[in-house]
Amino acid sequence: MSLVVVGSVAYDGVITPHGSVDRMLGGACTYISLAASYFTPVKIVGVVGTDFAEEDHQLLTDRNIDTDGLERADGLTFFWRGEYYENMNQRKTLQTDLNVFEHFNPKLPESYKDQPYLLLGNIQPALQKGVRAQMKGPKLTGGDTMNLWIDIARDELLATIAEWDVLVINDEEAYMLSGEKSIRKSAEKIIEMGPKTLIIKRGGDGAMLFRKDHYFVAPAYPLASLCDPTGAGDCFAGGFFGYLAGIGLDPAKDFDATELNRAVIYGSVMGSFCCERFGVERFRSLSRAEIDARYEEFRKITSF
Amino acid sequence: MSLVVVGSVAYDGVITPHGSVDRMLGGACTYISLAASYFTPVKIVGVVGTDFAEEDHQLLTDRNIDTDGLERADGLTFFWRGEYYENMNQRKTLQTDLNVFEHFNPKLPESYKDQPYLLLGNIQPALQKGVRAQMKGPKLTGGDTMNLWIDIARDELLATIAEWDVLVINDEEAYMLSGEKSIRKSAEKIIEMGPKTLIIKRGGDGAMLFRKDHYFVAPAYPLASLCDPTGAGDCFAGGFFGYLAGIGLDPAKDFDATELNRAVIYGSVMGSFCCERFGVERFRSLSRAEIDARYEEFRKITSF
Repeated sequence: MSLVVVGSVAYDGVITPHGSVDRMLGGACTYISLAASYFTPVKIVGVVGTDFAEEDHQLLTDRNIDTDGLERADGLTFFWRGEYYENMNQRKTLQTDLNVFEHFNPKLPESYKDQPYLLLGNIQPALQKGVRAQMKGPKLTGGDTMNLWIDIARDELLATIAEWDVLVINDEEAYMLSGEKSIRKSAEKIIEMGPKTLIIKRGGDGAMLFRKDHYFVAPAYPLASLCDPTGAGDCFAGGFFGYLAGIGLDPAKDFDATELNRAVIYGSVMGSFCCERFGVERFRSLSRAEIDARYEEFRKITSF
Repeated sequence: MSLVVVGSVAYDGVITPHGSVDRMLGGACTYISLAASYFTPVKIVGVVGTDFAEEDHQLLTDRNIDTDGLERADGLTFFWRGEYYENMNQRKTLQTDLNVFEHFNPKLPESYKDQPYLLLGNIQPALQKGVRAQMKGPKLTGGDTMNLWIDIARDELLATIAEWDVLVINDEEAYMLSGEKSIRKSAEKIIEMGPKTLIIKRGGDGAMLFRKDHYFVAPAYPLASLCDPTGAGDCFAGGFFGYLAGIGLDPAKDFDATELNRAVIYGSVMGSFCCERFGVERFRSLSRAEIDARYEEFRKITSF
C-alpha cells in the first residue's frame, strides 16, 4: 500500500553563504517522495517539461518511486531561484518561472486512487481538494500550504484543510493562519479549523506536533555544517508521512501518540540529511541504516 | 553546602509588546539566586545602593538566600531599562546607570569561602577570576559572560574561563567567542578553551549542552503566553547549577551525563516560569511542586 504524493517537480538555482548551484533537481513533490521512499512505496503526481532530464527521472525510479502520475507537458519545467541569508533560516526568491506548472491540473492514474495515504504538497488549495476528491477515501490525508494561499485563497484553503487529518506548516504560516502570536495559541485555533493533527515546522529550531489532547516538541538535529536548507521542510513531511504509512497507521482507530512523536523525529532526521548537501544530492547515497542511526542518536541527545 | 552566586542586583525598567514596568527588582544575581534557591541553599555576593527596598531584600531572605555578601553602598542601585521587539527574542537597551555597580569589587564573607559550588554571573572577567581566587577551591565553578567582554577583554576572559568547569552563554556569544558559524563547531572550539561543559542558551529555541564526548539538545518549553523574558537566561543558569548543587554533584568523579541533561531541563523549566510574569514576580508564588510538574511535562512532550 502506497503513499500518493502530489506537488511541484522543479529545477532550482540556489545561492548560499557557502556556494551556489545554477540548476538542480528540486520541487516539493521530489523532496517529499525521496524522503518518504525510505519508509514506504510512493506514487507521485506532478508535471515536468520537455527539458526534464532522464537522469533526474532515473533518480526517482531508482528509489522505487512510481512515476506513472508524472505528466510530461510541452514547455519547460518549473524553475525557481533563491538566495539564503547568512543565518540560512531565511531566503529571498530571485526568480520564479512557473512554466508547465502554471496549468498543472493533477490527474490521478487509476492505480493511485485506492491507495490509503495521501500527502498534498503546497499547490493551490482547490487543486489539493480536487486531488483528494479523486481518491477513494484515503485513510490519512495530509498536506502543506504557504503564505500566498493563506493570503489570497483563505476560504478555499479553509475548505480544503477541513478535510485533512494532518496539516504541516511553518511557524510564520501558523501565525498568519491563526492570527495569534504564540505557537500554542495558534495551534489551538488551527486544530479548530479541522486538521486533527498540526505539525509546525521551525527550520533550524525544530518542530512541534499538536493535537487536542497531546503535543510534542522536538529540537532540530544540530548539524555540524549546514550546506543548503532547500527542501528540508518537504523532506520533514516526507519522513513524517512515510513513517506513518510504513507502519500502516490507521487513524480510524485511535491515533497512537507515541508513533506520531516518532514520525516527527523521522521527519526531523530526513530534513537534517537534506541540508547536508545541495538539493537532493544527499539522497543519492543515503541509506536506511544511516537514517536509523541518526534516529537513535536523536533519542540519545534528547533523553534525560 | 551552598551555591555561592555573584553578579548584579539591579532595578530594571522594561517595555514589551504586552505592557511595561517602570521599575522592578532585577539583575543576574537576583534571578540566578531565586531560581537556584528551589534546589539548594544559596549565598549571594552583590552590591546595592541606599535606595534598595526592604521588601526586595525580604523577597531574597524569604527564599532562604543568605545575603551576608550583599553590600550596601552609598549611591543608587544599578538601573537598566530596555525594550523588547515584537518577537521577544531580541531587545534594545534604552538606559544603563551603573551607579554603585560601577565600582563593585566583590568580597566574599568568610562563611562563603569553603562552599563547594560557585556561579559567576556576568561581570568583568577579572572580577570573576578574583572571586574564584577567594574561594578555597570550589568543587564546581561555572559562569556566564557577554558580548562586551568577548569584544574588549578577550584575554582576561580566556584566562578566566580556562579555570571553569561550566561556561553558560547564548548562541550569539558562542559564535563571537569561537569565530565559527555553526553551533557544533563553536562548541568544539570553546571546549578547547578550558570549560569541560558548555551550555548554549538559545532563548525561545531551547538550549544545548556540549562536552568532549557528550552533547544534549533541549527544546524550549512552549509557553502559552510569554510576558517578559528578562532574566530567563539567568534563571536557566540558576536552575542548572542549583540542581547540580542540590544533588551534590562531584565533578572530581566522573561527570554524570544523565544528571547534566536533567540539569539542562531544570534550567529550561526555571527560565520558562520566569517568562510568565514581569521581572521576578513569578517567584513570589512559584512552588517546587509546580517546578517538578513542569519537569515531568517536559519529559512527556519530548519522549518518543
